[in-house]
Amino acid sequence: MTQITDYIRTIPDFPHEGIMFRDVTTLFADPRGFRMAVDQMLHPYAGQRIDAVAGLEARGFILGGAIAHQLSVGFIPIRKAGKLPGPTISQTYTLEYGTAEVEMHDDAITAGQNILLVDDLLATGGTAEAGISLIERLGGVITACAFVIDLPDLGGRKRLEAMGMQVDALCAFDGD
Amino acid sequence: MTQITDYIRTIPDFPHEGIMFRDVTTLFADPRGFRMAVDQMLHPYAGQRIDAVAGLEARGFILGGAIAHQLSVGFIPIRKAGKLPGPTISQTYTLEYGTAEVEMHDDAITAGQNILLVDDLLATGGTAEAGISLIERLGGVITACAFVIDLPDLGGRKRLEAMGMQVDALCAFDGD
Repeated sequence: MTQITDYIRTIPDFPHEGIMFRDVTTLFADPRGFRMAVDQMLHPYAGQRIDAVAGLEARGFILGGAIAHQLSVGFIPIRKAGKLPGPTISQTYTLEYGTAEVEMHDDAITAGQNILLVDDLLATGGTAEAGISLIERLGGVITACAFVIDLPDLGGRKRLEAMGMQVDALCAFDGD
Repeated sequence: MTQITDYIRTIPDFPHEGIMFRDVTTLFADPRGFRMAVDQMLHPYAGQRIDAVAGLEARGFILGGAIAHQLSVGFIPIRKAGKLPGPTISQTYTLEYGTAEVEMHDDAITAGQNILLVDDLLATGGTAEAGISLIERLGGVITACAFVIDLPDLGGRKRLEAMGMQVDALCAFDGD
């Protein structure tokens, strides 16, 4: 039977030498692949109440839009700094070199809402941790963090689990 | 009855003074609003064959992901330059000041596929025109260009219709 990993393409040396980039665009472009990803990502939460889906810019928007639609709930974007037009809260996080910042509208979540956080890839978990912080500062309750791909060697899963998060991914690539 | 425009928030002076920014994040965050947008955007094409949905970065990813999932077809991202990992084709277009560039993977579309192009907002139509060019260079046949919002005073609809495109939008704001 076809598996999620069959739809994921590996591009060597992107964005720079030595990186094996796991490309989900081939997964998203395939009708069966895209539907399988959305269905499998939602499988762990069947029967649970989810009030909204939050997605990390930019590939998390593609998955998050589809998953929110499947659940008939709203979608909340977590964006790079300066992109959201209304009043925001922001969170800085550390990159390999320097820092980055993500933002969410300050009225995007009502306290007590159950939020599913979605992105395509879990690496070091820096962006996801910043997203979790934004959601929790607005009183959101995170059901889980759902990814297509986990790169366990980069430590993101352990980092998010240490924060008390449920972390789910459809597949993992070791040695990245 | 609630209409799409009831869910859209206007933010004055974003991203700079004098611009009335039409903010769709309030539409996407509302369960009824988001579902209404996806349903109404697909309404004109009921019974037509669509093979894939192409979305413009970044808000077009949210809508495009949901619409592709609803249709059980694949999703193709049209991204800003340098973001896609595989071999790409690119298209430059003119902005108010300077130029910008969008890219698509060169194997994202098979010749003859029927493609629905999706974004949140039609203004001057520059990005959409560049996206159309990329799709057509790979042999894609564009069913229509679907938007939530049309700003007719900025000329995008006329520009795309002059290219022979079917252009659909859920609402229009004059005077922008």
